[in-house]
Amino acid sequence: MIISTKKGTPAAELERIIREFESKGLSVTMIRGTDYNVFGLVGDTTILDEKQIRANPYVDNVQRVSEPYKKANRLFHEADSVIDVAGVKVGGSEPIAVIGGPCSVEGENIVDIARTVKNAGACMLRGGAYKPRTSPYAFQGLGTEGIMDLVKAREATGLPIVSELMSEDKIDEFEEYVDLVQIGARNMQNFHLLKAVGRMKKPVLLKRGLANTIEEWIMSAEYIMSEGNENVILCERGIRTFEKYTRNTLDLSVVPIVKEKTHLPIIIDPSHATGNWRYVESMSLAAVAAGADGLIIEVHPCPECAWSDGAQSLKPERFAEVVRKARAIAHVVGREMR
Amino acid sequence: MIISTKKGTPAAELERIIREFESKGLSVTMIRGTDYNVFGLVGDTTILDEKQIRANPYVDNVQRVSEPYKKANRLFHEADSVIDVAGVKVGGSEPIAVIGGPCSVEGENIVDIARTVKNAGACMLRGGAYKPRTSPYAFQGLGTEGIMDLVKAREATGLPIVSELMSEDKIDEFEEYVDLVQIGARNMQNFHLLKAVGRMKKPVLLKRGLANTIEEWIMSAEYIMSEGNENVILCERGIRTFEKYTRNTLDLSVVPIVKEKTHLPIIIDPSHATGNWRYVESMSLAAVAAGADGLIIEVHPCPECAWSDGAQSLKPERFAEVVRKARAIAHVVGREMR
Amino acid sequence: MIISTKKGTPAAELERIIREFESKGLSVTMIRGTDYNVFGLVGDTTILDEKQIRANPYVDNVQRVSEPYKKANRLFHEADSVIDVAGVKVGGSEPIAVIGGPCSVEGENIVDIARTVKNAGACMLRGGAYKPRTSPYAFQGLGTEGIMDLVKAREATGLPIVSELMSEDKIDEFEEYVDLVQIGARNMQNFHLLKAVGRMKKPVLLKRGLANTIEEWIMSAEYIMSEGNENVILCERGIRTFEKYTRNTLDLSVVPIVKEKTHLPIIIDPSHATGNWRYVESMSLAAVAAGADGLIIEVHPCPECAWSDGAQSLKPERFAEVVRKARAIAHVVGREMR
Amino acid sequence: MIISTKKGTPAAELERIIREFESKGLSVTMIRGTDYNVFGLVGDTTILDEKQIRANPYVDNVQRVSEPYKKANRLFHEADSVIDVAGVKVGGSEPIAVIGGPCSVEGENIVDIARTVKNAGACMLRGGAYKPRTSPYAFQGLGTEGIMDLVKAREATGLPIVSELMSEDKIDEFEEYVDLVQIGARNMQNFHLLKAVGRMKKPVLLKRGLANTIEEWIMSAEYIMSEGNENVILCERGIRTFEKYTRNTLDLSVVPIVKEKTHLPIIIDPSHATGNWRYVESMSLAAVAAGADGLIIEVHPCPECAWSDGAQSLKPERFAEVVRKARAIAHVVGREMR
Repeated sequence: MIISTKKGTPAAELERIIREFESKGLSVTMIRGTDYNVFGLVGDTTILDEKQIRANPYVDNVQRVSEPYKKANRLFHEADSVIDVAGVKVGGSEPIAVIGGPCSVEGENIVDIARTVKNAGACMLRGGAYKPRTSPYAFQGLGTEGIMDLVKAREATGLPIVSELMSEDKIDEFEEYVDLVQIGARNMQNFHLLKAVGRMKKPVLLKRGLANTIEEWIMSAEYIMSEGNENVILCERGIRTFEKYTRNTLDLSVVPIVKEKTHLPIIIDPSHATGNWRYVESMSLAAVAAGADGLIIEVHPCPECAWSDGAQSLKPERFAEVVRKARAIAHVVGREMR
Repeated sequence: MIISTKKGTPAAELERIIREFESKGLSVTMIRGTDYNVFGLVGDTTILDEKQIRANPYVDNVQRVSEPYKKANRLFHEADSVIDVAGVKVGGSEPIAVIGGPCSVEGENIVDIARTVKNAGACMLRGGAYKPRTSPYAFQGLGTEGIMDLVKAREATGLPIVSELMSEDKIDEFEEYVDLVQIGARNMQNFHLLKAVGRMKKPVLLKRGLANTIEEWIMSAEYIMSEGNENVILCERGIRTFEKYTRNTLDLSVVPIVKEKTHLPIIIDPSHATGNWRYVESMSLAAVAAGADGLIIEVHPCPECAWSDGAQSLKPERFAEVVRKARAIAHVVGREMR
Repeated sequence: MIISTKKGTPAAELERIIREFESKGLSVTMIRGTDYNVFGLVGDTTILDEKQIRANPYVDNVQRVSEPYKKANRLFHEADSVIDVAGVKVGGSEPIAVIGGPCSVEGENIVDIARTVKNAGACMLRGGAYKPRTSPYAFQGLGTEGIMDLVKAREATGLPIVSELMSEDKIDEFEEYVDLVQIGARNMQNFHLLKAVGRMKKPVLLKRGLANTIEEWIMSAEYIMSEGNENVILCERGIRTFEKYTRNTLDLSVVPIVKEKTHLPIIIDPSHATGNWRYVESMSLAAVAAGADGLIIEVHPCPECAWSDGAQSLKPERFAEVVRKARAIAHVVGREMR
Repeated sequence: MIISTKKGTPAAELERIIREFESKGLSVTMIRGTDYNVFGLVGDTTILDEKQIRANPYVDNVQRVSEPYKKANRLFHEADSVIDVAGVKVGGSEPIAVIGGPCSVEGENIVDIARTVKNAGACMLRGGAYKPRTSPYAFQGLGTEGIMDLVKAREATGLPIVSELMSEDKIDEFEEYVDLVQIGARNMQNFHLLKAVGRMKKPVLLKRGLANTIEEWIMSAEYIMSEGNENVILCERGIRTFEKYTRNTLDLSVVPIVKEKTHLPIIIDPSHATGNWRYVESMSLAAVAAGADGLIIEVHPCPECAWSDGAQSLKPERFAEVVRKARAIAHVVGREMR
């Protein structure tokens, strides 16, 4: 960590600062400049709070040299983590995982959809039973009934099921029935919920928040991992920008960055990112070419009758075609796809 | 609501669409253009889901004419709402409310801080007992002990207390001890929590999310109000932009906008918005001049020893000066300040 | 265009508004709602100024149904435009164009670089002679000397040359010597310069502004086209967001969107978008998979000695590998690459 | 400047880096860490290009400690700069300057508007003769005729005139007739134009770009100052964010920041920032309370007939009321207003 102090900071204060950091077990080097003095701290600086240091009125700036995450950090864990979702492995050199299914579970027709997405090449089934909706007047999901419908679909097809957990009171239900527990974008910094899923046994799909930096996202993974659950898959689903032609802006550069900074798998959600089925194929192929470990795509047999997010759902035949093309791209970048 | 359909949409499809909306009790007018057809829907369009309508491949665009909120909407509730926080009234033509206190409660010294901020002009005391921190390794708050320290401070000074609720399992504690229940920026779209505080009896301070539009923020107020708790105060605390010299960008234009669109009070948090005590005075005075109903400011007797957010905390004497100047500004815009 | 008026607008004002639009040759339909009235205008609404209409205090909102661009609009020009750059064709079903070269021309070594990028598969050479630099103290480019060095490189290799034009006073120089005239991101809304290149005979490479919407970008193409020069290639180079791990956020969703909304070719600049050579391969492959018509990549034999932007430049051997992989991806999506 | 190198960088490379910086006259201190090594450079680091240093594959990160600007930097010029605009002084402890007038000059009625804004308290007249419009089909300004109309208004009222310069070919015209030369937001990084106005004798009003950081904005002022023209006034006019209820987001925190980092005056444009006359009063009062040195406000006798930007223009009587209230706020913060 690098700390710069303002012009005119008294010598006694500089010495006091040095002693304070040394008392925390850090080694301190001071660089005297003409207009500034700079301290370099060596040791475990994750224990320091930048904002507290900045509170000193003589301090001008504080900059981290090393990343604030440990368990997720590639520096301390060189090999790729491979996450096992009820037998389907994600990450490393495992085949690229395609997850398909509707935005919301709408009843037992999920069983048919599961068969369809499986035939098209999906290795997991997605479906929301608890839905985060901007409006309190919009459909809020079927709840437990929806989870039970997903379980029926799993029984019929063998596909592991992925669903979003919105609150701690459903943790037992998810621990029992769901194979991959999704934390949605709006809850990426619901730290209480992160800690709770950090104590679960099931792997977690952590979506990036709408306006969160990659560093904050990895820190949220760190929250889960620090509680003991190291089975975290990251999922990019678009960030909020000024652009209006798409719902969000898909940030595909996260793929090489997540792989450089962490050892965790990264998958892409082109459906929520673009909000428009017309752009899903293009972004899916791009994601695989970029090196993603998986795709999560919304599929509905009748998008215009979907109870939510129809505008971004692919029809099954279109989904099958996307998977077929994505598989060919995967081969070019040296990966398999189931 | 206005729906435009693509060039070449078959006449039968246009008729089907019209019948579908009419069956929902809406009145439909069609405007035939050269390259597009446009439908205007009149009636209660809050029941419609824009994304579902967009799923129709013939639909080009969907635009709302009326706002999607009802209970928070000024259109249906012309008079300003005045929210009573344990006897301190906020909003309308009531005096501008100043809330002061530390970021985190750090023990019983909160009683002294409470006396100090009261003397300086504050009418409520803030202090975090449950802290949302980006890093799992950072101080997470004193928890229930912190709440009890706040209660002691209230007993000593009579100041109502404001604290952040992060999870549903503490609702009973907050219902019993806290006067104004804060929902933090990171939980603004934690819809499960919003519904839960919507069933509380205590008033709610709803902070704007880091990257949420004003419309989404009002919709989150609507979540709380739709469960029965109409005592919501909105609080702007800066939004995320590309600018790096401040932690967030304080959006003061929310003051006239919130007053135009809703009947709820709006207060400003210059401390979190700027992340730097040097800019707090300037932004506080600006907020009052803009017409805000209150300020929430971080105050700490020794910012460089604060357990969190010291960089943005004012020392008590500085806080007193800000309040003194803000009071003079209040008079110019026709408001009192306690 | 759809115009909504506020509750309580007098009938006489509504009639006046209708007459005003009818006098401009537009057909007006009025939809009477309970809280709003809405007008639909049919005809050539590109002549209307939304902001002027909003100035009427009775007007609540103004929304365009049709796009504000004509010449660039796919609606009025169904076939893909193919742009001829000194014999190299870009767009439509032509091979994907790879443009390589250094950020800045640094002297006659550009001739060697040109040979290298040609051998690696590039079909055009890029190099900046006039450089837009944030700091007035940074290297500003070799100017005319740099252009002459590019000409030597073209003579040696036959590669057409691409270079950025920053000011009108160099138009004659570019008309004579440069094959593809680049308008940089910072000048995307330098409307005076856009009009000037609109009167040139050479094709134009129009980069998207750092914070410009796709619609504004197409409108800037429209500026050039409206002056007579319809040979415009669009280039995405990343937009400004809150993310800090990359210099900009590459928005690959522009590829399907630009192809839907316009008939112009779209190419991608992964070097400026990411600002980091480590991420260039990944983003290049993603761009081709997404359907881009070309790539423009920074290449330098010794990035650490480059006079500008070394951090984002590929070494020649790495560039050759990126082209080789991109070619394989191109085949999967049904395109050739030279 | 602080440079960190990657784990595993060879000792020989570390030594080479040290010698390279020392050869540029910088003093180098190395801090050896466990996972990183860090170099601190002392001396004139404005000569270094961060991106070039980052090109070294062993370099992990580069961070500036000192600001990259010199002439604009408060550190080297403690006193506030006061800019003289044809006798009207702006900045320091001078009275707060109010600039009023229409978006576009529409003919000789500008003389009447000038009288009106003068009576209401304005000390300068604004009016656009060259207009940067998103659409090539929108009104582009009266050009030289508009400048001559402004001159007539100045003759009639004595008010100095402010107008936007869009291209170098009009520099002689502006040098002769205009008192304060505005560089618009879209040209903030048109470096060629900045250098050209840097050679003018007239003071410059430099608007912040839509998506430019405060640092880039100050660097653009530095461009002008480095050519010899040190008479620069900065103007904030809103930045681009995700918010949709305003045209841009007014960033008032620039007021204390610009005053901390530079010695230049800062004025605020609430009209362009909000895009809505309803919010102009609130934001004007906030700007003065925040400590701004001036306001630039759009005024039109008939906003709904204005040729551009009517939606954000105040009627004269409303403008007079804003000035009256702003003057009272100014007194509270210890400033006069003419």
